[in-house]
Amino acid sequence: MKKVLVANRGEIAVRIIRACKEEGIETVAVYSEADREAMHVELADEAYCIGPKLSKDSYLNFSNIISIAKLTGCDGIHPGYGFLAENESFAELCEEVNIEFIGPTADAISKMGTKDVARETMKQAGVPIVPGSDGIVADEVEGLKVAKEIGFPVIIKATAGGGGKGIRVARDEEELIKGIKITQKEAAAAFGNPGVYLEKYIEVFRHVEVQVLADKFGNTIHLGERDCSIQRRMQKLVEEAPSPALTPKLRKEMGEAAVKAAEAVNYRGAGTVEFIFDHINEKFYFMEMNTRIQVEHPVTEMITGIDLIKQQLKVAAGEKLAYRQKDIQFNGWAIECRINAENPAKNFMPSPGKVTMYMPPGGFGVRVDSAMYTGYSIPPFYDSMVAKLIVHADTREEAVARMKRALDEFIIEGVDTTVPFHLSLMDHEVFKSGEFDTKFLEKYQVMH
Amino acid sequence: MKKVLVANRGEIAVRIIRACKEEGIETVAVYSEADREAMHVELADEAYCIGPKLSKDSYLNFSNIISIAKLTGCDGIHPGYGFLAENESFAELCEEVNIEFIGPTADAISKMGTKDVARETMKQAGVPIVPGSDGIVADEVEGLKVAKEIGFPVIIKATAGGGGKGIRVARDEEELIKGIKITQKEAAAAFGNPGVYLEKYIEVFRHVEVQVLADKFGNTIHLGERDCSIQRRMQKLVEEAPSPALTPKLRKEMGEAAVKAAEAVNYRGAGTVEFIFDHINEKFYFMEMNTRIQVEHPVTEMITGIDLIKQQLKVAAGEKLAYRQKDIQFNGWAIECRINAENPAKNFMPSPGKVTMYMPPGGFGVRVDSAMYTGYSIPPFYDSMVAKLIVHADTREEAVARMKRALDEFIIEGVDTTVPFHLSLMDHEVFKSGEFDTKFLEKYQVMH
Repeated sequence: MKKVLVANRGEIAVRIIRACKEEGIETVAVYSEADREAMHVELADEAYCIGPKLSKDSYLNFSNIISIAKLTGCDGIHPGYGFLAENESFAELCEEVNIEFIGPTADAISKMGTKDVARETMKQAGVPIVPGSDGIVADEVEGLKVAKEIGFPVIIKATAGGGGKGIRVARDEEELIKGIKITQKEAAAAFGNPGVYLEKYIEVFRHVEVQVLADKFGNTIHLGERDCSIQRRMQKLVEEAPSPALTPKLRKEMGEAAVKAAEAVNYRGAGTVEFIFDHINEKFYFMEMNTRIQVEHPVTEMITGIDLIKQQLKVAAGEKLAYRQKDIQFNGWAIECRINAENPAKNFMPSPGKVTMYMPPGGFGVRVDSAMYTGYSIPPFYDSMVAKLIVHADTREEAVARMKRALDEFIIEGVDTTVPFHLSLMDHEVFKSGEFDTKFLEKYQVMH
Repeated sequence: MKKVLVANRGEIAVRIIRACKEEGIETVAVYSEADREAMHVELADEAYCIGPKLSKDSYLNFSNIISIAKLTGCDGIHPGYGFLAENESFAELCEEVNIEFIGPTADAISKMGTKDVARETMKQAGVPIVPGSDGIVADEVEGLKVAKEIGFPVIIKATAGGGGKGIRVARDEEELIKGIKITQKEAAAAFGNPGVYLEKYIEVFRHVEVQVLADKFGNTIHLGERDCSIQRRMQKLVEEAPSPALTPKLRKEMGEAAVKAAEAVNYRGAGTVEFIFDHINEKFYFMEMNTRIQVEHPVTEMITGIDLIKQQLKVAAGEKLAYRQKDIQFNGWAIECRINAENPAKNFMPSPGKVTMYMPPGGFGVRVDSAMYTGYSIPPFYDSMVAKLIVHADTREEAVARMKRALDEFIIEGVDTTVPFHLSLMDHEVFKSGEFDTKFLEKYQVMH
């Protein structure tokens, strides 16, 4: 791997460029017209405009991106997360034009991207899945039979849905019959596929996910779990590693299940197997697999010392994994706060605009992954996450204290950010106790 | 320990305040008239002006500092490095007024601060010392006798000297006789003590030092070594841990010798035992002990995961060490570059003044300890070191690549800095090989 095109923007583009530089790999940045002044453009060896501000015209523009990769002689494309990261057609196109897509195969993306296929694949592989129907339910009659077997409440899911769309909870027979009909109709209209399936609805759970890493030779390991239970409307706000809720036994079982899941689709590169962790009954179930690097990958890097982006580059270049499972050691505790340009006091309303002063915190155990600088204008067209503040310490208690200290030092002027929210969260007794689930932010008021 | 006065400025004051905040300890900053806008003033809970710009009137002003500590109800004073850190009278004064001096006892400072006493103490403790005279030599006749025994070249040292002062090399009898007379005369004038002693002059060596940590109950451990051989006129510029030159056997022996050295003076807190490491003959000799936290402490923190400032606070508060020697694990490689406001192209001429733009690097394995910000004016009255850039990675090669990447990102405008020097150094083949000694910067041209 000599030259890589980074098909992304923001902090993850900067993150990838940094890893490439350290590996002696040349980098090509691409940018929309709204991102001319972006940091990834500045840091890359070369940079090319690929279209207007809207993602569909720029960061999702297959042909422009591939053309620039070919013209500049890139041997790989790193998609980051979002945009083209889980687009099987793009992965296929890369393969066709003989450019390494730095990620899994199109087949693995496809298998994990189609919900009922993923569910069936996991079942076959022996990965625990939430009790539910065997694939698509034909109609209300079949649905009702399944629901009675697994017990209410159940969740009706469109197989082609995702991101909180095409999902409906049913608490009794009436809701189920009505719900199946509506969801089928909506799914047909929205995704061109009316298929729905049923799952037991687990209301109280923690979001715990496992980082996996695999090479092209079938070597697959896991790098431990991350707990991402602090969410707002399904969006993660804070992630930590390890999870405060797992016992060593469950940690081992979940890690092994994640490796099985990855192996079932011949996974390669870095990926994440997300689990619903029913901490009350100490059971976990496959939720989905994200076939890409994730926003929260740094917490795993902090406790393992392993640079995941460098690992992606090495795997893509055809290197064998340098680690076996027994080599993976976990040290201390890491927490990440997502700093969004949003006003937490005004219902997290986006707050794009000019950053008149930017000064990140420093010192021991503090890491900042960001693409901001003093004078940078945050464009309103993309994700509002503008920085990640990650801390590492010996224990969870120390990590929380360090995060508080670092948040306190973080200066971002000119736009509103979630820094005050995170500061309050670090002082919240329930958060500090480590005992919470994904409904934490619905249950408790964090900012006063 | 509830409230600590930080009797220092710059990055080390910020470093100490950060550790206190994470430990839930209140902080009191002190500052000279030239430091009103300093970052440590901003970050501390309280801040008081202690005098005019010159150190002797402010940061060395015993009574002002003690008065403020008493008035604000501090139970401890952290001296940082430099200024009052190794001042036994100040340590004694703290004891008298019942404020914990966060450092060793006045007795330990004194024993290690007087060179021939330290040498004799080490000899008795079984720590290897450079062959030389038994204490002070009375005159040229005795000196000549010793010199003939140990062989030329020898070094004549004033027992009260330090920091490169009161030192003279003699390569033959004539130089020795002349040298003893002159050094005695100079030492009498400069230090009020004409005593000189002799040591074999080891010309080619590496500077390798060992971090020690001890509590008030006699538990003493070491945290491995640092290699500080990249020096300019006895000033360290780059430090790393571990040393590329030590074998596991030598590392063990040097660590044990450092613990012996500390135990010999009933050391407590964090300290450093510096060694002359004759890497050609694989022998090491006691150079001196620094009875304080050192500038380069972060490289040890990075490879051990142990926060040395927090350990100092805990020891001062009367806690027992939470670690035994066998608990200390070393992970990866860390390098620190001292960023000085100096122009390396103009013989490292100081370059104080206004920082018109400051933007530290970020990402995985990058730590910045600094007290700079955009708009800060670096005063000309103090040390020119304005930031420390520390990186951590799996191997030395990766750490060098990461340092280069991070230096490349570091933006400091308005003043000259040593960043370009360090960038060239990271590309220097001899530096990259790890095979160099303290004469590296005399032998090789780093910037072209």
